[in-house]
Amino acid sequence: METAQLDQQTATALTIEQLFAHWQGHRNLTRKTIEAFSEDDLFNYSVGGMRPFALLVVEILDLTGPGIEGIVTGKWKGMEELAHTTGNYPKTKEGLLSQWDATTTILNQFAPQVTYARLQDTEAAFGMYEDKIYSTLMYIIDNEIHHRAQATVYLRSLGIAPPPFWERF
Amino acid sequence: METAQLDQQTATALTIEQLFAHWQGHRNLTRKTIEAFSEDDLFNYSVGGMRPFALLVVEILDLTGPGIEGIVTGKWKGMEELAHTTGNYPKTKEGLLSQWDATTTILNQFAPQVTYARLQDTEAAFGMYEDKIYSTLMYIIDNEIHHRAQATVYLRSLGIAPPPFWERF
Repeated sequence: METAQLDQQTATALTIEQLFAHWQGHRNLTRKTIEAFSEDDLFNYSVGGMRPFALLVVEILDLTGPGIEGIVTGKWKGMEELAHTTGNYPKTKEGLLSQWDATTTILNQFAPQVTYARLQDTEAAFGMYEDKIYSTLMYIIDNEIHHRAQATVYLRSLGIAPPPFWERF
Repeated sequence: METAQLDQQTATALTIEQLFAHWQGHRNLTRKTIEAFSEDDLFNYSVGGMRPFALLVVEILDLTGPGIEGIVTGKWKGMEELAHTTGNYPKTKEGLLSQWDATTTILNQFAPQVTYARLQDTEAAFGMYEDKIYSTLMYIIDNEIHHRAQATVYLRSLGIAPPPFWERF
């Protein structure tokens, strides 16, 4: 009898390793979506008065790099220190992609230090969003899916087919 | 020593109960996003030649109801049987919301039957998408986030503020 696995309060939906592999798949798709934009459209084009995709990417990078550092160490940057607030971010497509790849390295360094116990802690992410850490982690991943999907509408309205949602690597 | 919890190959990222609660939060936000559209815009408006949000909602409903049934029972409907393929779906906003709520009930009925062992099975979802079941489940949730985000761009281009991403209930 695998009693523990029949109890949904404790049964694993997916393992930490599976969740981070899932996220890296999404991150690879987001990278391809950045590549699909011309530099001009990346920084200047949007629909309905929304932010251009470059600014959404900066927010995603802010939540991913400083986010995983906060998740692992408990040391959170304040929102006022993050690039999407300060404006201190790369102003070219190449620069953004380079920061994207640097953030992939940071994520791969910190991810193996994430533990079940830590994910069940409650803490104010970025000093202001109090929640369970696993919920903060899901928020960061979901926020990337959300903003990348908005960018697919930008691309369609530019007559460009976005990279397929199901192709992650 | 909590050895098992230090091993990321087996450590829980989140429990089955937490993942389904997380999904129902997203589903509530998607329901509010449907409500934000007028009936005419829901069925007829889009950006960049994409599908109107109603058709994306039908796809979400197809993946959620028949999806959770397949996940639990192993009995998968074929894509050719699903409403977004057959065209047999509600043609009013009220009808779509009513089917949304019926699907919430179905999800709540099946979710408690999901087990860790089942989520680690490999199976062809809807008879054609072979993957681990947990990955299929994540795909269904992510696909909802993706299409709802596209609808937020439709709303912005109509001059309507979408419901906030972070407000789930």
